[in-house]
Amino acid sequence: MHVELLCTGDELVTGLITDTNSPWFEARLFELGVKVERVHLVGDVHPDITHALLETALRADVVLVSGGLGPTSDDFTLECAAAAAGVPLVEEARALEWLEERYRSRGLTLSPSARRMARIPQGAEVVRNPAGSAPMVILRLGRCQLFFVPGVPREYRALAEGEVLPRIRALLEQEPGRAYRAFRLLRTVGVPESQLDARVAPLHPLHPQVVFGFRTHAPENHVKLMATASSQAEADAALASASSACRALLGSALFGVDGEEYTQVLARLLTQAGATLATAESCTGGLIAQQLTEVSGASAFFIGGAVSYSEKMKQAWVGVPAEVLERHTAVSRQTAEAMAEGVRAACGSTYGLSVTGYAGPTGGTAEDPVGTVYCALARQGHPTRCERYALSGDRDRVRLFAASSALELLRQALLSGGTAG
Amino acid sequence: MHVELLCTGDELVTGLITDTNSPWFEARLFELGVKVERVHLVGDVHPDITHALLETALRADVVLVSGGLGPTSDDFTLECAAAAAGVPLVEEARALEWLEERYRSRGLTLSPSARRMARIPQGAEVVRNPAGSAPMVILRLGRCQLFFVPGVPREYRALAEGEVLPRIRALLEQEPGRAYRAFRLLRTVGVPESQLDARVAPLHPLHPQVVFGFRTHAPENHVKLMATASSQAEADAALASASSACRALLGSALFGVDGEEYTQVLARLLTQAGATLATAESCTGGLIAQQLTEVSGASAFFIGGAVSYSEKMKQAWVGVPAEVLERHTAVSRQTAEAMAEGVRAACGSTYGLSVTGYAGPTGGTAEDPVGTVYCALARQGHPTRCERYALSGDRDRVRLFAASSALELLRQALLSGGTAG
Repeated sequence: MHVELLCTGDELVTGLITDTNSPWFEARLFELGVKVERVHLVGDVHPDITHALLETALRADVVLVSGGLGPTSDDFTLECAAAAAGVPLVEEARALEWLEERYRSRGLTLSPSARRMARIPQGAEVVRNPAGSAPMVILRLGRCQLFFVPGVPREYRALAEGEVLPRIRALLEQEPGRAYRAFRLLRTVGVPESQLDARVAPLHPLHPQVVFGFRTHAPENHVKLMATASSQAEADAALASASSACRALLGSALFGVDGEEYTQVLARLLTQAGATLATAESCTGGLIAQQLTEVSGASAFFIGGAVSYSEKMKQAWVGVPAEVLERHTAVSRQTAEAMAEGVRAACGSTYGLSVTGYAGPTGGTAEDPVGTVYCALARQGHPTRCERYALSGDRDRVRLFAASSALELLRQALLSGGTAG
Repeated sequence: MHVELLCTGDELVTGLITDTNSPWFEARLFELGVKVERVHLVGDVHPDITHALLETALRADVVLVSGGLGPTSDDFTLECAAAAAGVPLVEEARALEWLEERYRSRGLTLSPSARRMARIPQGAEVVRNPAGSAPMVILRLGRCQLFFVPGVPREYRALAEGEVLPRIRALLEQEPGRAYRAFRLLRTVGVPESQLDARVAPLHPLHPQVVFGFRTHAPENHVKLMATASSQAEADAALASASSACRALLGSALFGVDGEEYTQVLARLLTQAGATLATAESCTGGLIAQQLTEVSGASAFFIGGAVSYSEKMKQAWVGVPAEVLERHTAVSRQTAEAMAEGVRAACGSTYGLSVTGYAGPTGGTAEDPVGTVYCALARQGHPTRCERYALSGDRDRVRLFAASSALELLRQALLSGGTAG
């Protein structure tokens, strides 16, 4: 089934509003195995809307048209629809009744401009709007069905969910040889997108029913798997097979699937291990602590975080010896290790995690230029582990990847049985 | 000038990603007096992209095409462009050089898949990407110029701002009888959008050449002023007049204009006052420290931040007396004040700023339900000031507004001459 979405309104093409209706509806359709072919945003311009209606109707089986159904002078989507269909606008008796009822129940009388909402293209069908005034309108152009709904998110969603999706579902039932889809997102950290592609590429010919896609969501990279088959069971099986083949290839770089967030996964690992955590941050300035505490219930494992931005506080809060700072500077393996060990001791936690580095744009030395970051993980009774990273990009990016690198040290340690070394 | 935007990628038509690039670019164009005619989102389907390229090129003077320029197998926008233009893809020497340079500087070798990014439609022009690997490509189809940029927001914005907009501006210079626009964003915190609208509404009839708009960008609310006139000087004058009338109405709720970020403004105020700062955070978990240290050079005024997530660390790092915690609990006026005073003393800073509260979704008491937040500001020789806030929304929103409320305590104190009380 070929579905397109057409959203009208000047606010959508001048940057005033971001269209969040379409992604929501796309995701609902995708669950039914329907991938939207195209989304169009068009301003409030008569011939542009009329043209877009005719053009999408030529290609699509179903078009969901939103916006421009209200009572004001810039609401003229149904006029364009009538022009496209070559029919006049007529007042629909039932639609008028619903409007009068709605206005009466609120102690209002129907103004002439509000009454315009009952005018629809001749021969079209109306459906009551449970969340607002303007009714939904269904119009047929050739083999295409166009559904017109308001653009207000609450009304859009009520009608799309309650009226449009059931009709699409019914149409799908009648399709011979319809395609069924199954979808999975594999979330990784620590592997660049191009390496991810290269690593997964050998799987393509082995899984012909599956499309492999990639998405960067810094600091993460995701593999997108979409299986298509002639039954849901077959699509699910193809997806499961490709998914487990990917898992085997990606190993511990894969941290979660679909909606699993990194910090949630890490919180679960810490909880399962019965472990607690303390952090000492320099260049990331609190980013790690902030990410960890996004998780509700973080107080069960997170004891405290020191943002020891000055040398003074590196000594006072996390006990980095003055001679380490003097001899090796604040950005060094020795300082990172002392920070991790010091914050662990101060907080009495299972793990101590630290970061120090040059986030830029200024700072750095010849040996340790901007982007150099040291991360250390301490655990009582185990050797402290420290890694050096050479990160690229601007200040925000260095901080983001520094935080991610530090958290990865911890996650990998937890996966390998909890030993830091 | 007729401009259309074409965004490619399955993630855009399956609800995985909301297109935020287009609204940003639309707004930038609108400042130049150009309203985008149409935005298209198309999935990763060869004939669909090729068809959309041809169709938009027939109508438009300029098309900005984004996505599908990367190194992976689902990146084939330029193949579609070559098909649309009826030319082969060829390896571009300069683009290859830029790629090799970029990979070499990161200690990587160019893989065959990454090398694909140097292949462009024959006869097209390349422009170096300052923020990523894939170059921008400019292709002419008939009278239309198509600009191809990556979909990654950072790269999209760098190229759209630095390379596409200047070319569009140059084209506009040649257009006769164009309208001139002037634009200003007034950034506020602490005033709800509806109040902002009501406060500014009396100005509308006094400034007929200016359109007043509003934008929520939590925790900030912005007033957008757009003046239109037949010359740039007239537009600038109308804007300046409306802008100063707004300033007078908004007072100290207005913290900056246009691109001025909140933390930059705060950093400047601290620096001008010769003051330093330390923070103690509980429910915000490091968010305040992280925001402050986003500013390059933050070490000049930021001494340290304690994320004292446990009672233990509230005592150890910021010296909250055990009896205060026992008698008043960790979420109380007394604890917030002790945290602010304690962290100021520990760091020896001019100011100490603290937050404690219930971010939810669990926790809270009958008197202090979820959303209750106490913020305190301490300064040596001045009385400590503490405010209680009742915030609504989910955990993320409570944390965001808690951080903002705390920082506002500090900013207002700095504006009124630096006294905390």
